[in-house]
Amino acid sequence: MAQQLADLRDIDFALFEQLNVESLSEHEIFADFNKKTIKMIISEARQLAIKEILPTNKPGDEEGCTFESGVVKAPEGFQRIYDLYKEGEWLAMTEDPEIGGGGMPHTVHLVANELFNAANLSFMLYSGLTHGAAKLVETFGTDEQKRLFLRKMYSGEWSGTMLLTEPEAGSDVGALTSTATRNDDGTYNITGNKIFISGGEHDLTDNIIHPVLARIEGAPAGTKGISLFLVPKYRVNNDGSMGEFNDVICTGIEEKMGLHGNSTASLTLGSKGNCVGTLLGEENKGMRAMFVMMNEARQLVGQQGFSLATAAYISAVNYARERVQSAHVLKPKEGGVPIIQHPDVRRQLLIMKAYVDSLRSLIYFSGTIFDTIKATENAEEKQKLEYLVAILTPIIKGYITDKALEVTSHGVQVYGGYGYTKEYPVEQYMRDCRILMIYEGTNGIQALDLFQRKLRMENGKPFMDFLARIQRTIDQAKSVGATRELASRLQETLNNYQEIIVTLGKAAASDKALNAIAQATPLLEVTGDLVAAWMLLWRAEVATRALEDKPKKKDIEFYKGQQKTAEYFITSVLPVTMGKLNAIAGMNAAVLDISEDGFGGL
Amino acid sequence: MAQQLADLRDIDFALFEQLNVESLSEHEIFADFNKKTIKMIISEARQLAIKEILPTNKPGDEEGCTFESGVVKAPEGFQRIYDLYKEGEWLAMTEDPEIGGGGMPHTVHLVANELFNAANLSFMLYSGLTHGAAKLVETFGTDEQKRLFLRKMYSGEWSGTMLLTEPEAGSDVGALTSTATRNDDGTYNITGNKIFISGGEHDLTDNIIHPVLARIEGAPAGTKGISLFLVPKYRVNNDGSMGEFNDVICTGIEEKMGLHGNSTASLTLGSKGNCVGTLLGEENKGMRAMFVMMNEARQLVGQQGFSLATAAYISAVNYARERVQSAHVLKPKEGGVPIIQHPDVRRQLLIMKAYVDSLRSLIYFSGTIFDTIKATENAEEKQKLEYLVAILTPIIKGYITDKALEVTSHGVQVYGGYGYTKEYPVEQYMRDCRILMIYEGTNGIQALDLFQRKLRMENGKPFMDFLARIQRTIDQAKSVGATRELASRLQETLNNYQEIIVTLGKAAASDKALNAIAQATPLLEVTGDLVAAWMLLWRAEVATRALEDKPKKKDIEFYKGQQKTAEYFITSVLPVTMGKLNAIAGMNAAVLDISEDGFGGL
Repeated sequence: MAQQLADLRDIDFALFEQLNVESLSEHEIFADFNKKTIKMIISEARQLAIKEILPTNKPGDEEGCTFESGVVKAPEGFQRIYDLYKEGEWLAMTEDPEIGGGGMPHTVHLVANELFNAANLSFMLYSGLTHGAAKLVETFGTDEQKRLFLRKMYSGEWSGTMLLTEPEAGSDVGALTSTATRNDDGTYNITGNKIFISGGEHDLTDNIIHPVLARIEGAPAGTKGISLFLVPKYRVNNDGSMGEFNDVICTGIEEKMGLHGNSTASLTLGSKGNCVGTLLGEENKGMRAMFVMMNEARQLVGQQGFSLATAAYISAVNYARERVQSAHVLKPKEGGVPIIQHPDVRRQLLIMKAYVDSLRSLIYFSGTIFDTIKATENAEEKQKLEYLVAILTPIIKGYITDKALEVTSHGVQVYGGYGYTKEYPVEQYMRDCRILMIYEGTNGIQALDLFQRKLRMENGKPFMDFLARIQRTIDQAKSVGATRELASRLQETLNNYQEIIVTLGKAAASDKALNAIAQATPLLEVTGDLVAAWMLLWRAEVATRALEDKPKKKDIEFYKGQQKTAEYFITSVLPVTMGKLNAIAGMNAAVLDISEDGFGGL
Repeated sequence: MAQQLADLRDIDFALFEQLNVESLSEHEIFADFNKKTIKMIISEARQLAIKEILPTNKPGDEEGCTFESGVVKAPEGFQRIYDLYKEGEWLAMTEDPEIGGGGMPHTVHLVANELFNAANLSFMLYSGLTHGAAKLVETFGTDEQKRLFLRKMYSGEWSGTMLLTEPEAGSDVGALTSTATRNDDGTYNITGNKIFISGGEHDLTDNIIHPVLARIEGAPAGTKGISLFLVPKYRVNNDGSMGEFNDVICTGIEEKMGLHGNSTASLTLGSKGNCVGTLLGEENKGMRAMFVMMNEARQLVGQQGFSLATAAYISAVNYARERVQSAHVLKPKEGGVPIIQHPDVRRQLLIMKAYVDSLRSLIYFSGTIFDTIKATENAEEKQKLEYLVAILTPIIKGYITDKALEVTSHGVQVYGGYGYTKEYPVEQYMRDCRILMIYEGTNGIQALDLFQRKLRMENGKPFMDFLARIQRTIDQAKSVGATRELASRLQETLNNYQEIIVTLGKAAASDKALNAIAQATPLLEVTGDLVAAWMLLWRAEVATRALEDKPKKKDIEFYKGQQKTAEYFITSVLPVTMGKLNAIAGMNAAVLDISEDGFGGL
């Protein structure tokens, strides 16, 4: 039977054949998670995703959230699946068992999340935000804050959010004006207006815990004067029970292109002077706290995009196998064939597959890095891997969400006219996907992060280490006949890329700094292409070895498919990447030179 | 004041400075349309578009069409603007005054349409389809059919549609099964089920006239057995009055990603055996009739995409001038600046502008070709220009609608989080835009049309003439200092392109035919890039001459903007095109070689 949401065979391949995730169990903290256990967890997640969560996706989109006099209701079916998700203890599957977590590897969590997100992204945002908020409490909270909030959040009994954005402070967080005034008892009175708060108000949980960025009276301007506070919707008594309403008022929710099942709330804090929060972490260190959480939060968004891409691909490839339309181009007199036989449909499917496969590997690879950081005792290795995570983050957030829109759009195209209708799931994937390029730092900001911070961390040493990893895969693939030619082509791109990095680096340190900065987004794009090609070459090399090793019959086509996917990407996409590299090398300044009036429209 | 929908200064530039549209008035049939008159018509269209049509766009999207027991209602405000549009006699502005038309040049019609489409595409589909249906009656109808239908359709009193698609016959029109049985009086009884009929049922007009593709009993299989019929919703008496209901039943309308204001109807014809139509044109020549209309119909879709792109660009550039967010990257300690000052926002705006400007020129250029074909007495010139139209059609349909999605998506990105909400218009532009890559022949089909038909028409002579036109612009630009370098770069791309065309042509005639065909979409893409660069270089050359000619002060920045836009595209996009050309030249066959099982998901 055709699969749904994601290709299980490919998940297995990436986890166990490419990345040897089962070896994580050699670390004591992951000793319980051998291959069999991991597969069991994934299978359970898949059951929940397909049988329970997926059926709520379309109704949730159609029904949306409702807002009436301050009360927000999630779509009808969401409470039931929220309870199932909570009961299954999925929310804190990676956390320490001591605080109610499952102690599982992050990589396993990523697979479960992929299936859940693909089944209903709007729904998953509620728990995703809760997890992030709880992680803030875990990392920066006092014992008292942890005692009152942590277990209830990690269990999903209470949900969480993140209150950053204000009408005049979006990408520019430092411009926020929400205010905190210290009370005698050490708590703070909070006032301010926050917008675009995912899951900011809803009826799925009794209480909602808001980490809030605000400025303590008299604090410095900009990001240096921002502190983080914990502000519950209902105050929490010392015995953990819920107290009075904390003057956090929802003034409306956004109508948006997609993600209709998740409320995007505008919240007014302290309009009656009655909103009390506690400091989370240190005064004026709110932005630092954000930065600590940033890698995981941003990678989560990349994963959301990937999840929609995999769902779109599986839908499209299944449809293309079933839908009969037009004769084969070389046999025009014969009858119609399944559209998967048409070259242009195959081209679309193969580009979708190339992105889905490569990005799956990238995400899981990054997962194993997180896990190794957690498990290792070796401080030097830990430091190295943390740099690697920092480098991968803007790529995973920026490149994957860009490509996810492309993949979901191809999904619509494969379905033809049907793809544009709500009868099929693909148009929703595309609509849901579009926000991911914006939230949690626009992709333009990711590009600046890669270029201005990540490239030059520690004088560029970690970035060179990162490129050396790509080089190692190339070297390995060069030693295998079937991948030698592909490896040489990736080598050429990598060499070219390295030259460009040097050129841009020099420019950035000269009076051409702005010219270099204007290339940040194109640079993120080519970096992503390079990483995708790396992952596919790696896969092809693994598949080639597997083919030499007498595989099961049904696996032969799977492995050959891996080879062909790498071949397609490296021969048909990488030349375009080379063209992009040439464009970057030119560092043309028209973008900077054109006057504001020159843009017209006046 | 900031402009809306489209940049009037740029419209003037393309019409009068680049294309000398006023010279059309040298032809007798266009003698009335001098520059002043053309500008007056555009100004009137703009008034109607901005003041009346635009305010219905968002409500129309939110309200959508409703369906209840066979009755479809268009959004509430549509009747009023339909009447205004009808009274303004906009529907048949290009038609012969003898049949109720305005006799205007097609190019002028394109400008008016650009403004109307940008204001509300859903609304404009009703009259666009009516125009197409009326044109079928005008071209293929008997005197009787013309007498009964033509004026009422061109005036907009009755609307029209086009009934091609059936559930099993989408791209494969030849698979349709609707049936026509000849009656003794020469009429036909029609039965069949049609889907995806834009404006197929609604309450804006008393009658709806459906041209219907069906198969006369006993006709050959495939496209050779398809005939065209005229099937009114209500029969029409000999005196032109409306008679009884003609058994055309609407069984539902689609819920879709966008274009909510236009009904996409499923129609059942003759379920009570009571649907009567008359043959339009000759028996079994229905597909021929479609082909006659195809160039104009497909170019209209390209224009729809362009219209949304220009609306998105104008919205985004205005927003970027107003929205203050973050300090300038080189002055991090100073306050926030309008986002148009940020390099990455400028990059996005400039790529939007490059496409909007170039595609506007392409569309108007094609308009002047249509007009010259109509006006000229020179049979040889007419033939040449008809070939040119045939070549431009898949580019205008396929490339423009692809790029329109890209431009509208950039529009969303420039607005940031706000762009994803329905508070701003850009997310609707993107949703409305997505269907255009599918209907009227998917863009994959456009690519095949370009590669398999248009390239080789008359042994490739017309295609070489087309490339020679690009060469002429290059030669001219080479003679001007400011554009010399850009001209050389486009020359390089053109040379490379010509080589690839030869390579692909040879492959198509060999046993590598399928490998060549698999490159059809990439080839359409690079052809579009080439044409866009051509148009921009042409613009830059015109602007350079204008700058040398003591322009008005307020025009200086406009002309410089033209130079910078060409510079951006040619230095930053064309290198990527070169990469795409290299990929095509490789003609890799992975897309063909991968097995169906290799795509996974099983």
